[in-house]
Amino acid sequence: MVGVLQSNGELYRLPSKPQKYTPGGDGGTGLSHVCLERLAYVPTLPEVLRGRHEIVEGDRRECVGGHDIICGLFPHLSNTHNGHAPLRMVQVVSAAATPNNGSAAERPLRLGVVLSGGQAPGGHNVIIGLHDYLQRWHPGSTLVGFLNGPRGVMQNNYKLLQADELDGYRNQGGFHMIGSGRDAIAKPDQLAAAAKTCMEHDLDGLVVIGGDDSNTNSATMAEHFLKNGVKTTVVGVPKTIDGDLKNADVPTSFGFDTACKVYSEMIGNIMIDAMSAKKYYHFIRLMGRAASHVTLECALQTHPQLAVICEEVAAHRWGLKDVVRQVADMVAQRAELGKNFGVVLVPEGLVEFMHDVSALIVELNEIMAMGVNANDQLDVTAHLTAESADLFNNLPPGIRSELLEERDPHGNVQVSHIQTEKLLIKLVGMELMRRKAQGTFRGKFSALSHFFGYEGRCSLPSNFDATYCNALGQTAGCLVAAGQTGLMATVSNLDQPANKWSVGGTPLLSMMHLERRSGRDKPVIKKALVEIHGPAMTSYTSMRAIWAIQDWCRSPGPIQFKGHTSDMANISLALEVNEGHPCLVNEPTDKDN
Amino acid sequence: MVGVLQSNGELYRLPSKPQKYTPGGDGGTGLSHVCLERLAYVPTLPEVLRGRHEIVEGDRRECVGGHDIICGLFPHLSNTHNGHAPLRMVQVVSAAATPNNGSAAERPLRLGVVLSGGQAPGGHNVIIGLHDYLQRWHPGSTLVGFLNGPRGVMQNNYKLLQADELDGYRNQGGFHMIGSGRDAIAKPDQLAAAAKTCMEHDLDGLVVIGGDDSNTNSATMAEHFLKNGVKTTVVGVPKTIDGDLKNADVPTSFGFDTACKVYSEMIGNIMIDAMSAKKYYHFIRLMGRAASHVTLECALQTHPQLAVICEEVAAHRWGLKDVVRQVADMVAQRAELGKNFGVVLVPEGLVEFMHDVSALIVELNEIMAMGVNANDQLDVTAHLTAESADLFNNLPPGIRSELLEERDPHGNVQVSHIQTEKLLIKLVGMELMRRKAQGTFRGKFSALSHFFGYEGRCSLPSNFDATYCNALGQTAGCLVAAGQTGLMATVSNLDQPANKWSVGGTPLLSMMHLERRSGRDKPVIKKALVEIHGPAMTSYTSMRAIWAIQDWCRSPGPIQFKGHTSDMANISLALEVNEGHPCLVNEPTDKDN
Repeated sequence: MVGVLQSNGELYRLPSKPQKYTPGGDGGTGLSHVCLERLAYVPTLPEVLRGRHEIVEGDRRECVGGHDIICGLFPHLSNTHNGHAPLRMVQVVSAAATPNNGSAAERPLRLGVVLSGGQAPGGHNVIIGLHDYLQRWHPGSTLVGFLNGPRGVMQNNYKLLQADELDGYRNQGGFHMIGSGRDAIAKPDQLAAAAKTCMEHDLDGLVVIGGDDSNTNSATMAEHFLKNGVKTTVVGVPKTIDGDLKNADVPTSFGFDTACKVYSEMIGNIMIDAMSAKKYYHFIRLMGRAASHVTLECALQTHPQLAVICEEVAAHRWGLKDVVRQVADMVAQRAELGKNFGVVLVPEGLVEFMHDVSALIVELNEIMAMGVNANDQLDVTAHLTAESADLFNNLPPGIRSELLEERDPHGNVQVSHIQTEKLLIKLVGMELMRRKAQGTFRGKFSALSHFFGYEGRCSLPSNFDATYCNALGQTAGCLVAAGQTGLMATVSNLDQPANKWSVGGTPLLSMMHLERRSGRDKPVIKKALVEIHGPAMTSYTSMRAIWAIQDWCRSPGPIQFKGHTSDMANISLALEVNEGHPCLVNEPTDKDN
Repeated sequence: MVGVLQSNGELYRLPSKPQKYTPGGDGGTGLSHVCLERLAYVPTLPEVLRGRHEIVEGDRRECVGGHDIICGLFPHLSNTHNGHAPLRMVQVVSAAATPNNGSAAERPLRLGVVLSGGQAPGGHNVIIGLHDYLQRWHPGSTLVGFLNGPRGVMQNNYKLLQADELDGYRNQGGFHMIGSGRDAIAKPDQLAAAAKTCMEHDLDGLVVIGGDDSNTNSATMAEHFLKNGVKTTVVGVPKTIDGDLKNADVPTSFGFDTACKVYSEMIGNIMIDAMSAKKYYHFIRLMGRAASHVTLECALQTHPQLAVICEEVAAHRWGLKDVVRQVADMVAQRAELGKNFGVVLVPEGLVEFMHDVSALIVELNEIMAMGVNANDQLDVTAHLTAESADLFNNLPPGIRSELLEERDPHGNVQVSHIQTEKLLIKLVGMELMRRKAQGTFRGKFSALSHFFGYEGRCSLPSNFDATYCNALGQTAGCLVAAGQTGLMATVSNLDQPANKWSVGGTPLLSMMHLERRSGRDKPVIKKALVEIHGPAMTSYTSMRAIWAIQDWCRSPGPIQFKGHTSDMANISLALEVNEGHPCLVNEPTDKDN
């Protein structure tokens, strides 16, 4: 039975009944009852990792774009290295048929692990999966946890991770065991610092748990280490609640499932509140700067009256007026049915996807760089193009001031500080006043705003994320142990229960393309945006006209850890890999009922 | 097996496995998988209500204050009426020993039910409990659901509630089956309209599900009906997520348990995020205008670095500067330990509890009534007392404008529009800048704000609220069937499992006292504020100095409906009625494990 290490060094074993509440922490652990229950959850391990296994090379992969240029920039990763064929995906297969892969593989290893970027539910399980793999197949191995993100690698700030401590984080949310950070390991001095640390620890491998930028850097590090004869291999693990790190080999990034379920729980509650009180529109902004996967999944989970999807806004070159008109049309249509309430979902990145607003922001940044006085709105307007001046003058005064006053250290408009949901509320309100004056709107419009983001990044991982992360960690361990580098760990076949999942790796280079950044083409992992003809978006667009006027609210409720529903992954994944049938971590049993 | 009535009139039976996602709704019901699972939940009914039972009169109760005056204002309720002794609590007891209470009691009844005020999880179960009681003990009864709150009673806007429809709302959140509203039935014409409706329906009883104000009106209605020979009796059910409707006979109001658990899930997630990212203070405003029970319960659930409790602010006559200093002291103390992150909980009613701010608001309201131009801040300041002028001038400009510009229809400051958490962030930031200049603060202060309210009012009720509400509804049915009026339904003995719960009623008058409203003493139900020497507050104050500097974050996780933890009620209740031992709806069984 799993226990938790207490501050007095004794192991606290899980109680069979809920204990008395003591403000110092239940049973002295500081963990809540649900967290304690989650410690005892044992994620299903894919069968292939339970017995002896080996790695086989699979299909060759090309970069998403700029293949030749990227191969030229990563000469070691893109050519044969350490006996591995370049740019090939690899698969972990059962080794039962080939009994003589020697026990030499079982030598103790020295591995490092680092969390990079924003929190996502399941990070601890990746580290624990890695640890469990090492203890099972390479007993006596050392696991070095670098503290507070990539900075910990560069500054050699770390702690050794051991079973007693790790056991207290099984299936728990957060990144607080070793912390995370947003530093990059990309420039020559940063790469040199990382190499020095890896050599000092004599690391066989370094596992980087991060998003697209962090894993772009993983490729750079892998290349740098190969080039400089550093023996440490680098393997990435796909992490981001945004869900925009995926491709044919990587079906999803971890954390997306749980975060969307947390947001959808809240949205569903608010939708039922709107239907009950019948007096408010709730505008809900959701995390997701670059891609709208989170908003789309939440829309499928909850059936709101309207969800703005940035990729669609960009595809149709919609401007702010178009978006405002769409929302106002929906409100007006519902008013005709006597309904003056509803829910609108807005991705936080929206302002950058509306061509007119993004053009205005570019112009404002240029004007400020020219030294125009931000307090003189007339002067500012005089420097704008006619289209931007028109847009700017039609913004509510408060938003105009925000655009001019809130600037980042480089003097640029702080796009992330723009409360898009409040901007929409004001403009939709103004548009409806106009329509009311014209007699084309006879309803009421009273709106409230919400932002959900931080609430979902550190919650207890769903059964899916807990299991997926454990498998990712074990797979990363397996790849590093096999001397693989420049790969991202992959767990696929997600339409099957977890025992049937396939595991392997895909070349980080294969996820890369060239992107214009600061005036130069840079090789970076390509963000996976919402496909506007993909199954999730099609599912939404097929229904949105009905959801706009009907109240087919769907309240997903809180994440469950037991029973029929606990093992279901998110709807987007079900649509993408299983034709809408739920992706179930485990087959339902009668005991669940 | 429970099913859901579909739009085609057929009953949809619960599937044994999760079904394919169809955007029109799972299985055509529009309900999510978790909501479908909840339909099948059967709340435990207190044993006393399972077999034949009868009502016995218990102790006599006095009004909380102004007893004689209130009795004078409610002459019928406070004297013997319809053979019932006045101001006595009643208890429902098993009638096994007295077999000859005739089957005459089983005649079909005609009952009305109305939801009044803000949403609270469990409202549907009250109505369903009422319905189930009638069908069991008075088959053929009619249940009239008045639509959109008290207005539905006055305007005779209703629908008949029948099993097929009700079955689709079992254990579901929201008030959307019949809607709610904030109208009052208090003035003579309103009372007359309500009486007319009750007579038209020939109602034996009307059950009012509401908070303190709604139930004050229930007493007025009960009195009015007795006085005017309207046969309809009136029984109240204690509803409010704020938790401030309780007394010795009413251990808690329904909805508080679930709402606090939803907020605590979010707060716990944010606390873990703060500990992981190590760069932000999160200021979280929570619903609760008059009392801080919600904030206190959330503090016990999550162990934040600081929770402001309004009752304590009032008791010590703390002003804004005192509260700001306390927060700044905590931030400075943590900075010394190298920690520049944490979580602060703020009840939404705080501004009205700080003596200096509430004095300023009173003065501003008077000045505006005098016709002083709100745009002329100098003129406004000239009319303030020295203390208020000093406070006003030290507020950030944005807040000053908000105070002057956002006014309600009566010209008063819109206190509920003041974003207290943002006010605190700004003032704490200014205070810390001052300390930095003085060399007494060497940390960083970067803060984010959140508001949780609407998220918790319509969520799926916890097992506790689902069970408590079902028992309240059944009890209300029992009271009305026995001809009782002017009572609030009570369910007590909550330290025992639900089968052992006691049920009965307590006189609404006994919860009332006299309150100065618009220059007159008005009899109203007294709000139950946080007792600053009560067990919940003592539990918090005993630990807060430690929680301020340690990171003993407790993440309660999402509400569970199965397993050990699902049957635990909130911590405040456990401390108040069970010495900190969990109040469990059902005894844990081995099957839960």
